[in-house]
Amino acid sequence: MNNLSTDYFTKRKSCRNFNPQKISKKEIETIVMKATKAPTCGDMQLYSVIVTQDSEKLTLLSSYHYNQSAAVTAPMILTICADFFKFSKWCEINGADNAFNNFHSFIMAMTDAIILAQQIITVAEMEGLATCYLGTVNYNAKEISEMLGLPYLVVPVASVAIGYPAHEGEETQRQPVESILQFEEYKDFSDEEINRIFEHLENDPNKNQFIRENGKKNMAQVFSEVRYPRDMNEKVSKNFLELIRRKGYGDRTEI
Amino acid sequence: MNNLSTDYFTKRKSCRNFNPQKISKKEIETIVMKATKAPTCGDMQLYSVIVTQDSEKLTLLSSYHYNQSAAVTAPMILTICADFFKFSKWCEINGADNAFNNFHSFIMAMTDAIILAQQIITVAEMEGLATCYLGTVNYNAKEISEMLGLPYLVVPVASVAIGYPAHEGEETQRQPVESILQFEEYKDFSDEEINRIFEHLENDPNKNQFIRENGKKNMAQVFSEVRYPRDMNEKVSKNFLELIRRKGYGDRTEI
Repeated sequence: MNNLSTDYFTKRKSCRNFNPQKISKKEIETIVMKATKAPTCGDMQLYSVIVTQDSEKLTLLSSYHYNQSAAVTAPMILTICADFFKFSKWCEINGADNAFNNFHSFIMAMTDAIILAQQIITVAEMEGLATCYLGTVNYNAKEISEMLGLPYLVVPVASVAIGYPAHEGEETQRQPVESILQFEEYKDFSDEEINRIFEHLENDPNKNQFIRENGKKNMAQVFSEVRYPRDMNEKVSKNFLELIRRKGYGDRTEI
Repeated sequence: MNNLSTDYFTKRKSCRNFNPQKISKKEIETIVMKATKAPTCGDMQLYSVIVTQDSEKLTLLSSYHYNQSAAVTAPMILTICADFFKFSKWCEINGADNAFNNFHSFIMAMTDAIILAQQIITVAEMEGLATCYLGTVNYNAKEISEMLGLPYLVVPVASVAIGYPAHEGEETQRQPVESILQFEEYKDFSDEEINRIFEHLENDPNKNQFIRENGKKNMAQVFSEVRYPRDMNEKVSKNFLELIRRKGYGDRTEI
């Protein structure tokens, strides 16, 4: 390891346009195998990764991700799932209590699955591939779950489009580290500080177009009233909770 | 980037014994700054990282993590939080709807925070530091939240002990990749396959001691009746849900 390696992380970009070149079974197995060496809760590995490569299935899955370009152009989408199904089955087979049909167990498995997803991103990119999270996995989680045949205690929590890049992605701005990192206690921010933290979002190069097209006054309104509006967030909340319950994570504790 | 770099991921180990050497403010800022280049939902960066270095506070925080050796020996613990507080404040200041007091927004922010946590682990290890997740962050999340002064919409979701290693960590076994990676559809596993998947847990070198000490028949029972027992999981479920609600993520949708 040398500094050259970590410098990579200061420049990484997501890719939203892939070329059609396929990824072999061996390549994806190698990447996922390496990624599973990431930390996992009590060595339980509470996750599964479902590969979608079949072209008809990719079309359907992309539609659940609103046909965003990363989904439409990728030769492969990985759906990473919180999975207590395998572990619970192991317990049942061996006469042990199935203690995992509750909300905390979902949170444990989701944490495991997101850690794995991020390690897959890192390993894949270091192997020369490009990646993009599809942040829409929760929106149609029920439909994705049915399509992939996910059983009891298996819930999709991250989607990653993966392939060889057609274009270089665009570098995105980040907040100053001082607004992320706090020492000993959380200190509140003044209104001025808050506006400075999000200055790069307010100064988006396409700001005027976004604001005009949507009849808004500023980028804060574009974010919270157009991109992530209340009625959508509340609908997804209801549907995703319903899915977690149906998958059994609310069997023993009210959620 | 070369293959040497990704080979690191096949060998990585968590560290449970740190030496007392401190980590400078500059070091941790550099690591977190690099890590924030990880993907984040809509460029919103829905997280905060609270550093605990003060020795009295470390003692208290370690107790909330049950005084496990990684927590007790580490010169620094990072508490990574799902944080919609800053973003919501930006919206309010700018006359935009605060659309984020619901369960889906918690899931978005938690995803962002876990991605950041894993990127911090990767960058820190590549910079020569050693790390360990403290998987107990949810158990006393309310107490941790009070100690760190976390406001509305800020919930701790990952804890990382970080420092220079006193001992090499032990390499841990993982499941065969075939049990993690599935193509096109989730296929069920036979009882035989399930027992093979968890064979390495059943063959733990300290198995006989664990089983005898706890009066159990096998490692499956040690996991689900001693390490992660039902009554504890159900209690943590209740407390963690209560915290998420109190932090405002259930204000507008029933959770």
